[in-house]
Amino acid sequence: MHRYRSHTCAQLRKSDVGSAVRLSGWVHRVRDHGGLLFIDMRDHYGLTQIVADPDSPAFKVAETVRGEWVIRVDGEVKARMAEAVNGNLPTGEIEVFAGEIEVLSQSKELPLPVFGEPEYPEDIRLKYRFLDLRRETLHKNIVQRTKIIAEMRNRMGAEGFTEYSTPILTASSPEGARDFLVPSRIHPGKFFALPQAPQQYKQLLMVAGFDRYFQIAPCFRDEDPRADRLPGEFYQLDLEMSFVTQEDVWNTMEPVMRGVFEKFADGKPVTQQFRRIPYDTALRTYGSDKPDLRNPIEIQEVTSHFDGSGFKVFAGMIAANPKVEVWAIPARTGGSRAFCDRMNSWAQSEGQPGLGYIFWRKEGDKLEGAGPIAKNIGEERTEAIRQQLGLSDGDAAFFVAGDPKKFVSFAGAARTRAGEELNLVDRDRFELCWIIDFPFYEWLEEEKKIDFAHNPFSMPQGGIDALNSQDPLTIKAYQYDMVCNGFEIASGSIRNQLPETMVKAFEITGKSREEVEEQFGGLYRAFQYGAPPHGGMAAGVDRVIMLLVGAKNLREVTLFPMNQQAQDLLMNAPAEAQPQQLRELSLRVAVAKKEA
Amino acid sequence: MHRYRSHTCAQLRKSDVGSAVRLSGWVHRVRDHGGLLFIDMRDHYGLTQIVADPDSPAFKVAETVRGEWVIRVDGEVKARMAEAVNGNLPTGEIEVFAGEIEVLSQSKELPLPVFGEPEYPEDIRLKYRFLDLRRETLHKNIVQRTKIIAEMRNRMGAEGFTEYSTPILTASSPEGARDFLVPSRIHPGKFFALPQAPQQYKQLLMVAGFDRYFQIAPCFRDEDPRADRLPGEFYQLDLEMSFVTQEDVWNTMEPVMRGVFEKFADGKPVTQQFRRIPYDTALRTYGSDKPDLRNPIEIQEVTSHFDGSGFKVFAGMIAANPKVEVWAIPARTGGSRAFCDRMNSWAQSEGQPGLGYIFWRKEGDKLEGAGPIAKNIGEERTEAIRQQLGLSDGDAAFFVAGDPKKFVSFAGAARTRAGEELNLVDRDRFELCWIIDFPFYEWLEEEKKIDFAHNPFSMPQGGIDALNSQDPLTIKAYQYDMVCNGFEIASGSIRNQLPETMVKAFEITGKSREEVEEQFGGLYRAFQYGAPPHGGMAAGVDRVIMLLVGAKNLREVTLFPMNQQAQDLLMNAPAEAQPQQLRELSLRVAVAKKEA
Repeated sequence: MHRYRSHTCAQLRKSDVGSAVRLSGWVHRVRDHGGLLFIDMRDHYGLTQIVADPDSPAFKVAETVRGEWVIRVDGEVKARMAEAVNGNLPTGEIEVFAGEIEVLSQSKELPLPVFGEPEYPEDIRLKYRFLDLRRETLHKNIVQRTKIIAEMRNRMGAEGFTEYSTPILTASSPEGARDFLVPSRIHPGKFFALPQAPQQYKQLLMVAGFDRYFQIAPCFRDEDPRADRLPGEFYQLDLEMSFVTQEDVWNTMEPVMRGVFEKFADGKPVTQQFRRIPYDTALRTYGSDKPDLRNPIEIQEVTSHFDGSGFKVFAGMIAANPKVEVWAIPARTGGSRAFCDRMNSWAQSEGQPGLGYIFWRKEGDKLEGAGPIAKNIGEERTEAIRQQLGLSDGDAAFFVAGDPKKFVSFAGAARTRAGEELNLVDRDRFELCWIIDFPFYEWLEEEKKIDFAHNPFSMPQGGIDALNSQDPLTIKAYQYDMVCNGFEIASGSIRNQLPETMVKAFEITGKSREEVEEQFGGLYRAFQYGAPPHGGMAAGVDRVIMLLVGAKNLREVTLFPMNQQAQDLLMNAPAEAQPQQLRELSLRVAVAKKEA
Repeated sequence: MHRYRSHTCAQLRKSDVGSAVRLSGWVHRVRDHGGLLFIDMRDHYGLTQIVADPDSPAFKVAETVRGEWVIRVDGEVKARMAEAVNGNLPTGEIEVFAGEIEVLSQSKELPLPVFGEPEYPEDIRLKYRFLDLRRETLHKNIVQRTKIIAEMRNRMGAEGFTEYSTPILTASSPEGARDFLVPSRIHPGKFFALPQAPQQYKQLLMVAGFDRYFQIAPCFRDEDPRADRLPGEFYQLDLEMSFVTQEDVWNTMEPVMRGVFEKFADGKPVTQQFRRIPYDTALRTYGSDKPDLRNPIEIQEVTSHFDGSGFKVFAGMIAANPKVEVWAIPARTGGSRAFCDRMNSWAQSEGQPGLGYIFWRKEGDKLEGAGPIAKNIGEERTEAIRQQLGLSDGDAAFFVAGDPKKFVSFAGAARTRAGEELNLVDRDRFELCWIIDFPFYEWLEEEKKIDFAHNPFSMPQGGIDALNSQDPLTIKAYQYDMVCNGFEIASGSIRNQLPETMVKAFEITGKSREEVEEQFGGLYRAFQYGAPPHGGMAAGVDRVIMLLVGAKNLREVTLFPMNQQAQDLLMNAPAEAQPQQLRELSLRVAVAKKEA
């Protein structure tokens, strides 16, 4: 018989009754039932119940074992009595009567209970991550994580993509977030950087003639701690394709992502055909470029109903500034003064002056719009608004007015708030869509300059002609996001692979040809030697996993995460370096003194 | 029709004749044949011949295109005339008559030719890696690399292993090679390290109850440039298993690796059952713990034949020191004075005083041992040696004498040299074996102390009893290598998961319990809370690929390698950091001044 086990702790069935078996695993729980000792024994695969009766030579050892000890048990498989069968456990029809127990490894008193998973302070959980990972939920999440990633790999392979690993020690990138630097010992005073994403390398791969690249790519950003991002490293499903339009990327990746979601959605419905929503439409309809489409509320513009109306605040704004619009957030079933007042208070807590509303109720046979706005604009306009929004008795609408650029995100938040408060959001589904036609440039008000709105490597719609002739702020990019349930889960674009178009695009942001050459030398040089049209995207692996397992925190889907202060409490990192190491790296630590 | 292509450049066949098609790709070569222009058009998948005749509207464009331009061609598939069919090309039965050509991207004059792959200076190749990668051999190697890695993944999955990614920003490891450090911005003066291998994490995964881990793991070592290792990063097929003996690891991984080799060996034979050769035997038989088993030469000890013989040099050494042995390297077909003298000169060039030999030749009917040694020891002893070694007419034997510890690697080199010079090595095969039972400790002569011979985390054979009672230098470890054609391609062990055994093992090397706790805190702590017996190994992915594609240089199987001076010439890394970056990291560059 094998030194440690003939079966895993999830394998034995009724058909094994009578067999002599050997199991190894952790003591999950010990119970004493009238002299018999019951040990729930656990391994990666499952649980098996071990029984030690006082007549067995194993009993003496069984009496000594404690939670999380590792033991080997030799015994005989017996059928459980009918009333003892556990239907929730694959091994629930049998138990193993121990003939011999060997303690393979003891455990000190546990700093963190494994059985039952009571809540526990996170720093203890991270310091004793090896115990935390034994807990059922986290163990399951991590296994699910590996399966989701394997499924991504398989589906990408099936679509004709090849996985290439790109360098991790590379050059600092002047765009985007802050790099992690790695000092070079051999070249004193010089540094490598860890890649924020393999963006430049994947484009170089296309220029090198590899056609369909993907990678489950480690990415590194030295950002200040944020609730929705782990400090340090994260993973992207990164991909790039040559000789494609953006429709090709969408048509390729939509089935891949839908397939991954469907496989792990645990029966929840997944969008079958992703809507392609232009960025401008998304903002005007959902107040967000990452709309949660499970929320049925669609914002509508209702400016004309307020133009010249008796609601002087809005009417005055409209008269004063042609940019001013009024948007309505229709809220079915929100038609009570109590709810409308709650929304108003919430708006004030968000720093807004308030949130105007109308709600509709039946007075006798008559459907009546109520609230201050309705009073001010009168019955006719109130009714016109109701009809435009398709609302009826018991519904409400909220109004925001001003320059849409300034209120759009608040309008989106109000839509979210109303949908959630009124339970209009169907939580048990995955609603996916594409947001497309992102603007290429944006205006930086503080710096009074034009900059890239997103990715400087994207191709502007209309190409170099648009750059030469169009108002830059009206140019769209071949740039797109994939959004699920209100989260951006992927982002991509068709790239600008024409060196002259690249230089022109940068010039508009104030960068000279020389700066482009210096800062993006690898790519810029490559584009001069026959670069194919190409594009792709990158999906946030951690975020997709969080959505699929329903975790609220990235640390619940990550094996060995750092804490929010960017420390690895298990391995004690970061830590001070040896003086010898610093000397070899030609570095000195110079902690800045606080100014007096 | 699709914007860029209806087919790839490898797809069209005779059955497509008459179809209107669209292809995109690179201009591989243009030839002018009596007014007709022939363009070999290339993409990732293959080549297709394009024909532009002067009557076609495409001709004018075709006249302008140059090597490595990217073009789109619309045209009609036509069958080639019988004499023009190219049997070496999957598309060799057809050609596409161009109706329209669009230039998608031009190329400046090439700094590095793609077509024909003439030899070129490596620094140019690395700087223009995107062109280098278009060359047929390198392109093929990289594709092969991705396939080999995918095959490893698939086979590991089929064996019940799960791929887990372990952190890349982690703690400095006090053992092994030099770490790359990553300064922490948030914790001034502290550093992360890039993992030399995921050793501690994979063991923690076992302690956390995950049963079979693997990872295609990026590993980082800041080593001085070496011909057989890329600076910076490399990849391992890393794995670990719980509740196993070393036989389980061998029995699991042997079919995986054999399968990978067989799939990519291009028909070359692969060892079906790997021999398990104890370390001591390997040294005595092959003079190496990474023997090339394609070389049939087996070293034998022949001390007794020289003891008290007339060959005074050896006889004297034997008499003076009981540790002295004489080893013979039999060399079939090496039986000429010319060859023996060449071996002798080679030995001198290696810093040896010389290499004694006997060679056998027929003098009339008589088989005679020739050379100075034979003369000195006389006919009877010479014949006894011949019989022990099983040699005959036309063969030779070389002799080394002394303390085997000191001459063993030279004996191994002589075996290799003789085998290669005499063409005894069958190059067209893959000979794999396990080297097992490595010593646990070794004696450091310079420091006059005992240290771990290999992995401090290995389990000593005999466990804590052996540590308590045995001469440390006689203790073996459950430690093993996999060797192919003279290269170590994998290394592993059963781990020491018992904290008291771990402390004892370190104590023998002079490290206190406190030092173990401090330096290996993560693992040491984990072992106190129920650690399963576990073991595993790690295979060098890059090395396996090199062997399989027959590359002589790691840069020939790596996408974006650094040069031998640890520089990425394509991306220009490492580079100086911005003063702002250094300030944020609380670092100052302090390049040491050379001493006057």
